[in-house]
Amino acid sequence: MSNAGGKPALKVALLGCGVVGSQVVRLLREQADDLAARVGAPLELAGVAVRRLGRKRDTEVDPALLTTDAEALVTRDDVDIVVEVIGGIEPARSLILAAMARGKSVVTANKALLAEDGATIHGAARDNGADLYFEASVAGAIPLLRPLRESLAGDRVRRVLGIVNGTTNYILDRMDSSGASFTEALEEAQALGYAEADPTADVEGFDAAAKAAILAGIAFHSRVTAADVHREGITEITAADVDSARGMGYVIKLLAICARSDDGRSIGVRVHPAMIPRSHPLAGVREAYNAVFVEAESAGRLMFYGAGAGGAPTASAVLGDIVAVARNRLAGTRGPEESTYADLKVHPMGDTVTRYHISVDVADKPGVLARVADIFAKHDVSIQTVLQEGRGDDAQLVLVTHRASDAALSATIEELRDLDIVRAVASVMRVEGDETP
Amino acid sequence: MSNAGGKPALKVALLGCGVVGSQVVRLLREQADDLAARVGAPLELAGVAVRRLGRKRDTEVDPALLTTDAEALVTRDDVDIVVEVIGGIEPARSLILAAMARGKSVVTANKALLAEDGATIHGAARDNGADLYFEASVAGAIPLLRPLRESLAGDRVRRVLGIVNGTTNYILDRMDSSGASFTEALEEAQALGYAEADPTADVEGFDAAAKAAILAGIAFHSRVTAADVHREGITEITAADVDSARGMGYVIKLLAICARSDDGRSIGVRVHPAMIPRSHPLAGVREAYNAVFVEAESAGRLMFYGAGAGGAPTASAVLGDIVAVARNRLAGTRGPEESTYADLKVHPMGDTVTRYHISVDVADKPGVLARVADIFAKHDVSIQTVLQEGRGDDAQLVLVTHRASDAALSATIEELRDLDIVRAVASVMRVEGDETP
Repeated sequence: MSNAGGKPALKVALLGCGVVGSQVVRLLREQADDLAARVGAPLELAGVAVRRLGRKRDTEVDPALLTTDAEALVTRDDVDIVVEVIGGIEPARSLILAAMARGKSVVTANKALLAEDGATIHGAARDNGADLYFEASVAGAIPLLRPLRESLAGDRVRRVLGIVNGTTNYILDRMDSSGASFTEALEEAQALGYAEADPTADVEGFDAAAKAAILAGIAFHSRVTAADVHREGITEITAADVDSARGMGYVIKLLAICARSDDGRSIGVRVHPAMIPRSHPLAGVREAYNAVFVEAESAGRLMFYGAGAGGAPTASAVLGDIVAVARNRLAGTRGPEESTYADLKVHPMGDTVTRYHISVDVADKPGVLARVADIFAKHDVSIQTVLQEGRGDDAQLVLVTHRASDAALSATIEELRDLDIVRAVASVMRVEGDETP
Repeated sequence: MSNAGGKPALKVALLGCGVVGSQVVRLLREQADDLAARVGAPLELAGVAVRRLGRKRDTEVDPALLTTDAEALVTRDDVDIVVEVIGGIEPARSLILAAMARGKSVVTANKALLAEDGATIHGAARDNGADLYFEASVAGAIPLLRPLRESLAGDRVRRVLGIVNGTTNYILDRMDSSGASFTEALEEAQALGYAEADPTADVEGFDAAAKAAILAGIAFHSRVTAADVHREGITEITAADVDSARGMGYVIKLLAICARSDDGRSIGVRVHPAMIPRSHPLAGVREAYNAVFVEAESAGRLMFYGAGAGGAPTASAVLGDIVAVARNRLAGTRGPEESTYADLKVHPMGDTVTRYHISVDVADKPGVLARVADIFAKHDVSIQTVLQEGRGDDAQLVLVTHRASDAALSATIEELRDLDIVRAVASVMRVEGDETP
């Protein structure tokens, strides 16, 4: 074993040896010399906690390192760094807390835990003076949390707009490029391993919502949990919606949006499908890639793009964090604590202001447009463009609004649905990333 | 003045109050409360060194803070952090060294100095235990150096491919979108303030070469200077080149490319115009924006996009660094030192391997293609596609090669030029970002 500068090795305990964990094991082994040079001391794998000892792994793991007793591993006196890649709330939370209580540094990829109970985890890090790094929890390999926490620490973030779920981006990209239905595209994603057998967490937006909560908390120096996030999935997107968006020069993406309100006093955090112009940098994000667009007062518009999931990319982010906490331990210091001083509240979805694309099937007779327009006006929703297309007895109205609150739009749609001349409100989709006021 | 946690203020000395410096002054004032909360202590502007006291500034500066004695300012006992935004080699270097000798933390945006004499600056930081941060030196507001130095510290970078000069990107984008000549596009860039009256540093690639040296050093943990960088500018790009690239589905960009050699034992660092496929994420980078594409073994393909220059964006990066060094001072620690342990050498341009697009005017008679192809074969340059187009007595041959060394390609071109049937080698352009082997 190499021994940079003669310093004793820092010992790493790994919790979980699945898709990500096995790549962490591989990289710790294959890049041992580089890591030692970069840290200033060797990194040594002290043990790997798994559920079952006999299971086949994606990489070779010394059987002597494997244990099913995670609790004993994280509390071992000789362990310096605990890496948690089990996921889920328990036992991950208890193990992380046990590790911090003994002064271990913690690296985790656990978005669900941080989004549901970040207060407990960050609080324990603070109380114990323990390092907590979690770059891999959002957008896989893309360096995103460190830039937000550190590079933009002297700036004021206005908005974060991201594609943070690769599965849904793959599905929507397939629907856009091939005309496939949601079901067909999902099946294809499952066949390729981009979607799980039970795709609920992805297609219903739960995964993206957890990431949105973490991003919003960091970007706005406030505490945000998954429960604060307005969430809509992509299961109701039809091939017709995608086609209609394409016809207007838009593409439908599942976006995580964290934005300061116009008065700067609250934030909105939401995950839902939205139409964005094809000229927007996020529109070009294909397949299962992720990208996050950040708008800050001084920096302007930034975008971070890369692989949002997968064993090796996620392990790259985990390794970067391991190097950081290892350097901190050697220097007797720690990284930035959770920053929640701004304490901004998340406003209700009804207060969110954006634009909308609405498709309404109406009876094709005189006065219909006037009556529809009246309802929009009554709720103070200003129409930017309207397109009417006859279809025999019926007609289709496609309206795009100026910026309006979600509450006003909802009230408008409700009243439209009750109108005798309206056959159906065929679709309502938010329009984002288009700065026309 | 706010006083977070009751800690005494950290005092900041600013060297230079031009486009970037005046924005730093403004942001330190306007965001004082946020900065104090994020740092854990207030930041106080201790003085601003300028060349002339009376000059009009972009922001209000307390006249009592202005001084023409920069040396006295950086050595003042009460100064904690020195921010250098003068640019150029001297007096910037002497001032930074004087500051470090007294244990000040240094934040600089000075790409020229770091690329020309980084060894001296980094050495002084190490010897004095001083912090040195320089995010603003490359790609303005885009968080790039911190991700490379820290987030990817557990990964192995293969290649960095970037658009790091906004002026030339604006010019090439205008040529591509409007069919303008280089001269017309340059004049437009000058009228809009994107290009300086003397545009040499930008259009001849000096600015990009300095940034490439800094990027290569960080990405490959080695020491690289501006003199190591192969550099070609964009002044010879014609409207016809741009048009021909467009016809083939390519766009011409000025790229900074830092790449590990195939055997991993050396690196190539170069700045030159190149054709990239329109489907490549860098192809969509418009106007004066910057973007850097990073390929790493585990993380895969990452891209960082944003404003590469300008007062406020550059100041955002400077402020992020100020917050970092301020936090470090409070914690009694410092950021990562220069990492040059890998000590890879920069190989000569002739050893660089890439693909080429070559346009040759030839006599239109039988046997021409065979004779041209023979010369390519003789130098082991394999042709991927060839297109011959008759033009009366003459014909144009457009060839795209497989990967070949720059030396082999140069020898091929030289021999082609001597061929009696060759009227002229109209253009030779490297092709990048296209992974076809």
